[in-house]
Amino acid sequence: MTKRIFNFSAGPATLPEEVLTEARDNLLSLGDLGAGIMEISHRSPEFDAIIDGAEAGIRRLLGLTDDWAVLFLQGGASTQFTMVPQNLGADADYVLTGAWSEKALKEAQKLGSPRVAASSKETNFDRLPTELDLRADARFVHVTSNNTIFGTQFREVPQTQAPLVCDASSDILSRPLDLSRYAMIYAGAQKNLGPSGVTLVIMRKSLLERSPKSLPTMLNYNTHVEKGSRFNTPPTFGIYFIGLVTQWIEAQGGLAAMDQRNQAKAQQLYDAIDGIDLYQGTVQPESRSLMNVTFKLTDASREGEFLSQAKARGLHGLKGHRSVGGVRASIYNAMPVAGVEALVGFMREFAGA
Amino acid sequence: MTKRIFNFSAGPATLPEEVLTEARDNLLSLGDLGAGIMEISHRSPEFDAIIDGAEAGIRRLLGLTDDWAVLFLQGGASTQFTMVPQNLGADADYVLTGAWSEKALKEAQKLGSPRVAASSKETNFDRLPTELDLRADARFVHVTSNNTIFGTQFREVPQTQAPLVCDASSDILSRPLDLSRYAMIYAGAQKNLGPSGVTLVIMRKSLLERSPKSLPTMLNYNTHVEKGSRFNTPPTFGIYFIGLVTQWIEAQGGLAAMDQRNQAKAQQLYDAIDGIDLYQGTVQPESRSLMNVTFKLTDASREGEFLSQAKARGLHGLKGHRSVGGVRASIYNAMPVAGVEALVGFMREFAGA
Repeated sequence: MTKRIFNFSAGPATLPEEVLTEARDNLLSLGDLGAGIMEISHRSPEFDAIIDGAEAGIRRLLGLTDDWAVLFLQGGASTQFTMVPQNLGADADYVLTGAWSEKALKEAQKLGSPRVAASSKETNFDRLPTELDLRADARFVHVTSNNTIFGTQFREVPQTQAPLVCDASSDILSRPLDLSRYAMIYAGAQKNLGPSGVTLVIMRKSLLERSPKSLPTMLNYNTHVEKGSRFNTPPTFGIYFIGLVTQWIEAQGGLAAMDQRNQAKAQQLYDAIDGIDLYQGTVQPESRSLMNVTFKLTDASREGEFLSQAKARGLHGLKGHRSVGGVRASIYNAMPVAGVEALVGFMREFAGA
Repeated sequence: MTKRIFNFSAGPATLPEEVLTEARDNLLSLGDLGAGIMEISHRSPEFDAIIDGAEAGIRRLLGLTDDWAVLFLQGGASTQFTMVPQNLGADADYVLTGAWSEKALKEAQKLGSPRVAASSKETNFDRLPTELDLRADARFVHVTSNNTIFGTQFREVPQTQAPLVCDASSDILSRPLDLSRYAMIYAGAQKNLGPSGVTLVIMRKSLLERSPKSLPTMLNYNTHVEKGSRFNTPPTFGIYFIGLVTQWIEAQGGLAAMDQRNQAKAQQLYDAIDGIDLYQGTVQPESRSLMNVTFKLTDASREGEFLSQAKARGLHGLKGHRSVGGVRASIYNAMPVAGVEALVGFMREFAGA
């Protein structure tokens, strides 16, 4: 077996090796069935057990009661950008923290007249906006809990009167959530949950009555709630993988343990960034993400060398997003502590610190 | 390794063992990269090579010229049911051959006034309609080339004046196509292409100018054509798998060879159905599918026994769809000749023939 690198890619991202191994071992035969996980009907008892298990894992980890629906959909967060206002109404308040929330706003603008409740665009999204101009009677408030590109994250999402809808694609299941603040959470799988191609949607069932009957069937949340995410053929392999990831998180001690570990990993990196002259964080300290750690080299001419030397040591995927530049280390749940330690070690050595 | 069964499931369905093995071997490390196929960025050079290879494979097999676009989308054929009329206009002619074309029609009805050009519903879709009342100025004509549930298939799709849009979910890449008859072909992957969760869309670029600018970004084909199916994170693993399947088909001799093999497999089964008194085909002979072979037992009281004895011999997934009953053997590209031979042998033995 080839030695695995430390993969700091922002997504699709590194996945837990134990889970990959389990999936690999079931690719040609799910247990002793004689047919692989991708080859079984989505209407079979075997798949019922898999999707029920994945949903149960999500429910246990987040503590979801029966008044929440859990859906496994397709199309990524980008499809949720239009499904949310199509189902809930477009007269909503959007908090802008970067490219993703801007894209979400744009889809609502195609449908009605959403409002910008806050934005940190004028400082190139290097922080979270602090003053939120929120309406109690907005159809919903939309926030992106973690901005993958700039490396900002709400430690706690805002308390709102209108229902809060959160794009948690890049920090879902990375920490416990105070559910009382949320009405709906959606997340593309490819950062903290599994392979790309499956979207987790968690929503209060009370929102379902809002969906207009005229919506295309596949864009109406009710379709998927009524059919247990099996109105049509769901992405069965991705759902299977999410189920394994929930088991893996539980084996690590659950969300509180993940949060502790994620805080410790990020702290090591931010300490190195703040403690070594060659590095400079690109985000204001109070807005820093535990998932995507972004920084620059104070001597920008050395960035190419930094990235290529890192790669030569098995530290891959560190190039910052083109709209920010610099370096980005994505350290989701599945990034081992050893990976962060290796990166910090390299940073010290490279800086001669 | 557990012995593999013969899996006659209608979809998700059996996949080529060589392809599954290759995917398995790249799950923890793509070649010697040290990161698995699901863990690499959709913007990496490694994934560029994968998606370009998958597209090139589709283009070579079908003989697509540059005036065709090839897209890898999400949401299954069910999402295409609404995307097609949203982009091309809803004033279209629908040929009804079963549940899938009815569902497609229903989505167009939500958007405008499509027409039914033909239907075989009054004989419970046991044949293809022969008289097609088609308009030259319809926005498009919609057909389902193979009906998975009833087991009917157009040997050749109709010649139309309006652009022909074909749902080929259950017979894509099973035979060569006369492209001159088609304007657009779409197919969920989970029968002949790979795992569920990726949808292949092949369309003439000349259709792209029809899409209204007001469409949600993800529902506009132009979005995906402009970004090479990477406007957002695509289902990377499914696309990788489709690429491997196209290589596998080429290694089998291409679509003409697949067609010969598929005809021979189906012929064996239909010969047994027609030659043994205990079995009776449920579809009129001239409309029979090479992909889904449906039949009943003339002594219906023995069907349960038939299915359970078949399963005990490693012949799984033979129960007919609830709306037809009886037996259905789905024998897509990846079903080996040996699987069909085993089934025919069992049928003879069970009937005492």
